[in-house]
Amino acid sequence: MERHFEIELNGLKERLLWMGSLAERAVHQAIHSVLDGDASLAEVILEEEPAINELQMEIDDRVMQLLALHQLMAADLRFVLAISRINNDLERIGDQAVNIAQSSQRILRHPRVKPYVDLPRMSELAEGMVRDSLNAVVRRDLTLARSILVRDDQVDNLRDQIFRELLSYMMGDSAVVFQAFELILVAKNLERVADHATNIAEDVIYMVEGHDVRHAAADRR
Amino acid sequence: MERHFEIELNGLKERLLWMGSLAERAVHQAIHSVLDGDASLAEVILEEEPAINELQMEIDDRVMQLLALHQLMAADLRFVLAISRINNDLERIGDQAVNIAQSSQRILRHPRVKPYVDLPRMSELAEGMVRDSLNAVVRRDLTLARSILVRDDQVDNLRDQIFRELLSYMMGDSAVVFQAFELILVAKNLERVADHATNIAEDVIYMVEGHDVRHAAADRR
Repeated sequence: MERHFEIELNGLKERLLWMGSLAERAVHQAIHSVLDGDASLAEVILEEEPAINELQMEIDDRVMQLLALHQLMAADLRFVLAISRINNDLERIGDQAVNIAQSSQRILRHPRVKPYVDLPRMSELAEGMVRDSLNAVVRRDLTLARSILVRDDQVDNLRDQIFRELLSYMMGDSAVVFQAFELILVAKNLERVADHATNIAEDVIYMVEGHDVRHAAADRR
Repeated sequence: MERHFEIELNGLKERLLWMGSLAERAVHQAIHSVLDGDASLAEVILEEEPAINELQMEIDDRVMQLLALHQLMAADLRFVLAISRINNDLERIGDQAVNIAQSSQRILRHPRVKPYVDLPRMSELAEGMVRDSLNAVVRRDLTLARSILVRDDQVDNLRDQIFRELLSYMMGDSAVVFQAFELILVAKNLERVADHATNIAEDVIYMVEGHDVRHAAADRR
């Protein structure tokens, strides 16, 4: 029984990591679709989203099976419940990639303007947070998990800066209102990607330490 | 054992409903803080948020206890896992109320302009969805749950209309860019409230019918 449980749990972890890598790649492609004005990248994301959604349902099923077949001790139970929540966060990261891809498509329908805002850095930060949050899950690495909570504040500061720049851009030239608005939506989506990575990091801390850090600091938006 | 489980489950449901009513009220107050320019309402929400966060942790603990103490059959397991997810969605609805309250505070620091956009209707729709999603949980009411999926499309249409109106408002007068931007954020927050209510409705369908409808229709943003 114990052995069987280990095998099932490893299978579950593997699928979760696969899902994580798909979600992270989708965000990366989506933002590059915006930055490089590449419509084909946006297409790819929309085509690949169903794979992430199917993985989410598969992982939820595996969690159900595992809980139905084994009476778990507290530590394992915490781990399995954490996986169920992380699964949800990864799927939402995929949704954010889709939102960005759709923004990209709308931006491409309009004449090209290129305001300088630091979306590349915001995106790099957010992608790194997703990657490291999954590394933290696998390695049960508390230090790495905590570093993600710190980076979330950096992302929020960057978002505020980007908003300020886009708003003054809009005030200066009403012809760019539409494009600047789309970039605001993109920055909001990246902010949510970072928020989901932070949720995952908090789950790692909960899973390893057995106590809840979700509302320990000021809440994130 | 069975009887004990029933009592625990009822306690869990009761706490979930209480949390739901707090979250719904917070959204209601937040939007009225914006619409009526009422700073004290915004304060109330910020003060009351910790109560929602504590409830989230309490409910998660109860879920853990329940799973640790009872080996549940598929239907009960689905229900308990659904409650764990719904708990998450309710907490996020509370977060959206806080975001709206903070927008309200920023709006109040600037000279008052009153663009006509249909935030009241959007808010009414979203609040009704939250309320009915919880009614659907309690009554295991599939018809009510499905009606929420339909209303989510109405909310998205309303959001698009509000965005269009605010953008043309911004283009017409650069002095209102800031206030219009805040109202865009508020509309985004209401959209997310409606999304969370839709997640809850989907969980009800999953819980009652035992199959996943989350990705059956086109995905919501």
